[in-house]
Amino acid sequence: MIVVMKTNATREQIDHMLRRVREMGLTPHMIEGTERKVIACVGDERFKAPEQLAVGAGVDKVIPILARYKIASREVKPEPTIIPLGLGSLGGPRIGIIAGPCTVESRSMLLEAAHAVKEAGAIALRGGAFKPRTDPYSFQGLGEEGLKYLAEAREATGLAVVTEVMAVEQVPLVAEYADVLQIGARNMQNYNLLAAVGKVDKPVLLKRGLSADFDEFLLAAEYILSQGNSRVILCERGIRTFEQFTRFTFPVAVLPALKQATHLPVIADPSHATGRSDLVEAVARAAIAAGADGLIVEVHPDPEKALVDGAESLNFDGFKKLVASCRKVAEAVGRTL
Amino acid sequence: MIVVMKTNATREQIDHMLRRVREMGLTPHMIEGTERKVIACVGDERFKAPEQLAVGAGVDKVIPILARYKIASREVKPEPTIIPLGLGSLGGPRIGIIAGPCTVESRSMLLEAAHAVKEAGAIALRGGAFKPRTDPYSFQGLGEEGLKYLAEAREATGLAVVTEVMAVEQVPLVAEYADVLQIGARNMQNYNLLAAVGKVDKPVLLKRGLSADFDEFLLAAEYILSQGNSRVILCERGIRTFEQFTRFTFPVAVLPALKQATHLPVIADPSHATGRSDLVEAVARAAIAAGADGLIVEVHPDPEKALVDGAESLNFDGFKKLVASCRKVAEAVGRTL
Amino acid sequence: MIVVMKTNATREQIDHMLRRVREMGLTPHMIEGTERKVIACVGDERFKAPEQLAVGAGVDKVIPILARYKIASREVKPEPTIIPLGLGSLGGPRIGIIAGPCTVESRSMLLEAAHAVKEAGAIALRGGAFKPRTDPYSFQGLGEEGLKYLAEAREATGLAVVTEVMAVEQVPLVAEYADVLQIGARNMQNYNLLAAVGKVDKPVLLKRGLSADFDEFLLAAEYILSQGNSRVILCERGIRTFEQFTRFTFPVAVLPALKQATHLPVIADPSHATGRSDLVEAVARAAIAAGADGLIVEVHPDPEKALVDGAESLNFDGFKKLVASCRKVAEAVGRTL
Amino acid sequence: MIVVMKTNATREQIDHMLRRVREMGLTPHMIEGTERKVIACVGDERFKAPEQLAVGAGVDKVIPILARYKIASREVKPEPTIIPLGLGSLGGPRIGIIAGPCTVESRSMLLEAAHAVKEAGAIALRGGAFKPRTDPYSFQGLGEEGLKYLAEAREATGLAVVTEVMAVEQVPLVAEYADVLQIGARNMQNYNLLAAVGKVDKPVLLKRGLSADFDEFLLAAEYILSQGNSRVILCERGIRTFEQFTRFTFPVAVLPALKQATHLPVIADPSHATGRSDLVEAVARAAIAAGADGLIVEVHPDPEKALVDGAESLNFDGFKKLVASCRKVAEAVGRTL
Repeated sequence: MIVVMKTNATREQIDHMLRRVREMGLTPHMIEGTERKVIACVGDERFKAPEQLAVGAGVDKVIPILARYKIASREVKPEPTIIPLGLGSLGGPRIGIIAGPCTVESRSMLLEAAHAVKEAGAIALRGGAFKPRTDPYSFQGLGEEGLKYLAEAREATGLAVVTEVMAVEQVPLVAEYADVLQIGARNMQNYNLLAAVGKVDKPVLLKRGLSADFDEFLLAAEYILSQGNSRVILCERGIRTFEQFTRFTFPVAVLPALKQATHLPVIADPSHATGRSDLVEAVARAAIAAGADGLIVEVHPDPEKALVDGAESLNFDGFKKLVASCRKVAEAVGRTL
Repeated sequence: MIVVMKTNATREQIDHMLRRVREMGLTPHMIEGTERKVIACVGDERFKAPEQLAVGAGVDKVIPILARYKIASREVKPEPTIIPLGLGSLGGPRIGIIAGPCTVESRSMLLEAAHAVKEAGAIALRGGAFKPRTDPYSFQGLGEEGLKYLAEAREATGLAVVTEVMAVEQVPLVAEYADVLQIGARNMQNYNLLAAVGKVDKPVLLKRGLSADFDEFLLAAEYILSQGNSRVILCERGIRTFEQFTRFTFPVAVLPALKQATHLPVIADPSHATGRSDLVEAVARAAIAAGADGLIVEVHPDPEKALVDGAESLNFDGFKKLVASCRKVAEAVGRTL
Repeated sequence: MIVVMKTNATREQIDHMLRRVREMGLTPHMIEGTERKVIACVGDERFKAPEQLAVGAGVDKVIPILARYKIASREVKPEPTIIPLGLGSLGGPRIGIIAGPCTVESRSMLLEAAHAVKEAGAIALRGGAFKPRTDPYSFQGLGEEGLKYLAEAREATGLAVVTEVMAVEQVPLVAEYADVLQIGARNMQNYNLLAAVGKVDKPVLLKRGLSADFDEFLLAAEYILSQGNSRVILCERGIRTFEQFTRFTFPVAVLPALKQATHLPVIADPSHATGRSDLVEAVARAAIAAGADGLIVEVHPDPEKALVDGAESLNFDGFKKLVASCRKVAEAVGRTL
Repeated sequence: MIVVMKTNATREQIDHMLRRVREMGLTPHMIEGTERKVIACVGDERFKAPEQLAVGAGVDKVIPILARYKIASREVKPEPTIIPLGLGSLGGPRIGIIAGPCTVESRSMLLEAAHAVKEAGAIALRGGAFKPRTDPYSFQGLGEEGLKYLAEAREATGLAVVTEVMAVEQVPLVAEYADVLQIGARNMQNYNLLAAVGKVDKPVLLKRGLSADFDEFLLAAEYILSQGNSRVILCERGIRTFEQFTRFTFPVAVLPALKQATHLPVIADPSHATGRSDLVEAVARAAIAAGADGLIVEVHPDPEKALVDGAESLNFDGFKKLVASCRKVAEAVGRTL
């Protein structure tokens, strides 16, 4: 890291900082600029706390140089990680689509949805059994009953099951039924939960927190990877900005930037990102065009009657249309779907 | 709520929506505007999903009218909730300050800090035993050992103990030692955790999520209140915006706005909000001037050697100076400290 | 608009508001909700100031219903506006690409760039003669000399010339040389300038302000349209958010949302949005996939030596590659390029 | 500045960058880190374009070290700049308040407001003659007539006149009548306008752009200062974030941060920042407590009938109350008002 001293830093303050850098196990290199002195610190800064240097007297600022994730980095593992999933895979040349209702509302609606999304071309089925709701008075999900319906739908269709796990104590139960454990955006920095899924032998779909920055997202993945679970799928689902015409802002450039930075599969959730069913297909196409390895899309037999997130759900026809148009875009960028 | 139809909505679409509104148990009132038709829906919309109406054909948008929190609302309980705490209280005319190190690093440093912050005027001691760290390779806290040191510091000083609980399974353990359970910003929408602390008979300090909006913050409090725990302390700790000169942006107007909307005590965390020890005192004064009921401040015997968040910690002298200047501001706004 | 009264609003306060609504020339309709009274105001609210009602005693909030733009709206003019431009057009089935250097640095580099972008498939040439620079010590552009080189490049290639006008007094000069007057993001709400270009008989390329919301963007277009100039091209160039891995955040969903809301052509600027040449092509593809009518791209013979914005400029090979891959995506979404 | 090379940068790429750095007139110092090579560039980087280095092959990123403003910096001029204004001054120990209506609506209302704000303790009168309105159909101000009324109000009261100038061609006219030229937030990066007011011998009140970052704000001030005008007043008026309960977010920490970074006076606009008259006083107090040198506040004889921005205007009683409570806070922080 780089320690930038203030213009008027004294000799003593500089000497103190050189000493502090050495105490932290790093080697300082002093550079005398025209206006300021700068101390470059050589060594593995990943395990050091730059804040400790930032409070030194005479210090203007401390600038880290190295990204703090390592296992997730493409510099460490250049070839892409490919994760087989249900009727396809994520991370290879073929695009994979996960689809289904926001929440498992009943056995019949889930089975209906599963058959419909399979027929349209999905490789996995999504559906929430435990729902994190902003509002304590809203429907909270069917729990284990929902998980059983999901497993039944897998038997019937071959689709993999993707479902959210909201708490450490739910991990064993969800892992018993699901093929992929989903970590929701609001739990992206729930480190106990990350550690718990990091010890399970199932892929984890990690959603970006709605105000997590690029490095924080990859550090959350690193958290899981560092526990031994090498199958992490990154999912962009929109960030919170000043924009109000959509529920969140879908920052499409994050997709190619992630594909450069990491070997992990990167997918997009156009449903939550927009919150508007009339924009889902266009954003899905954009994600594929920008390099996403897959999509996770909300589909409901009758969005008008969905208990949760109806405004962003496609009906079966809408989903079929989405798959068809995404397939063309996938081919345009040299992939298949 | 208000359903705004598109300009070119057909008679049929309007009739369909009127029917849908009635099916949801609400009474529709049609208003014929000069350009659009609007349906006002009368009834308790709190338990309804506006999204279900938003997907109707011919609908332009649905606008909710009622805030979705109720127990937290000052309309329901006009008098302020006052929560006694250690050597003082929060929510009454006297300002209360919670102070201490980010993390309990050792028994001796904690006791030293406890005595120092008590002497300077704090009513409670903060200190993390379990630390949520962005980075899997950072120090994660002392765990139960840290809780024991906190309890010992309480015995020695009379300060109440405020410490973070990060997961449902930690709740019984932390509740055994602590006087106040803190929910961190990253867990503000960890609903399982909110439900768990809602069932404990200890006050909860709820930090605003770094991209939570006003209503989401109050809904998270409502979540806890709805479980039976009436002692929730709201804490603003900075939001994520485009600003980079501080770690987060401290949106000071939220303090008087919360005091209007809710009867719960509202405090401010100037340390995390800024991430810069040289700005903490000024922001603390601003918070008191704007109507905060208290502060939570990071204080460390030697910030240069703090294992966590040293850059934002005050040393003992800095904290004494903060209390002295905040006391003057408190008196200027008709309160004491 | 809708006036929502507070729960405890008095009869007198409600009567006062009914009177105020009538004084503003609107017809009030009172709706008695279960908890609150709501006044729906019928009439053309576009010319009214909702703030005047918001300050009334007993008023909780005022919610506008109608978008405040009209001429720009697709409800008023359903068919798309197609604007012929140089070797193609914007707004029709064929995608149009505007390309060239950020700034006109010299005659030879501009001519070289013009020939190269034409050959690669561009329909228009961009290049700044007057540069708005954040930094007073940076290169500010060649002024009229730059305009002359642009005109010469048009003669040589047939490309239309797109260049920024930064101030009212520059309008006549720039209009003399350019085919399209560009309004930069930082001037999107410079109303004097909008009014001035609204009176010129040349198309205007209006960039979205970096923190302008959806309606403000369309209102700025309305400003120009209301002066009589019907040829406005909307350009998304990235918004300011907390993200730092790119210079700005490219909110791709705005493209299909604008295409729904307005008949005007909508294009994207992947260069400024990302500030990173390694992400430009992917974002360009995403924009086309999401429904953009065109692109404006920075191309420089030698980005390493560009006086302005080199970090986001493509070289000629990079641009050729971008056009080729965007052409495939355009065809995948049923368009040509 | 610091050039960080990629892990796998080749010897050739590094040599190329060392050469490029020298070509730019800077002296490179190579530092061999454990994972990456870093080139520290010594020399005055202020006049260099870091982007030129960022595009070099093998370069990961370029990090600037020096702030790009100089004349505005407190490192260059440690003592505060004090600007006499009407019945007081800005930047010295005494707080100064500028108050008045958003817009000059008529002669009588302006004179009434002037007398009222003077009596309450203001030192200067604000009032818009030219109004930048988001909406082309809104009231746009009285123009020169409004300026005349402002001048008349000055004669009658001794208050200085602060009014906005929106375009280069308005500068001479406004400078004839006004004591302070205000640059609105939407023009903070209108460089032609900044240059024009930089040549006038009157103080300039520069509002922060609603998404301008810390350095951009100071660079805009630098722009004016570099033209020879040394009297710039910085004004924080709220930034755009995801928050919706106020019109903008008032980031109070910017006040002490600016006071550290620059010698220029720093004031706050609590009216535009919140857009809610019920929050103005609390935010005003917070600003003074955080170190603001003054305030600019909207005051209207009858906010319910204000043509512009009524929702955030105080009436005379509200303003008197604000001054009284801010006076107490000013004294609490060792200043007067």
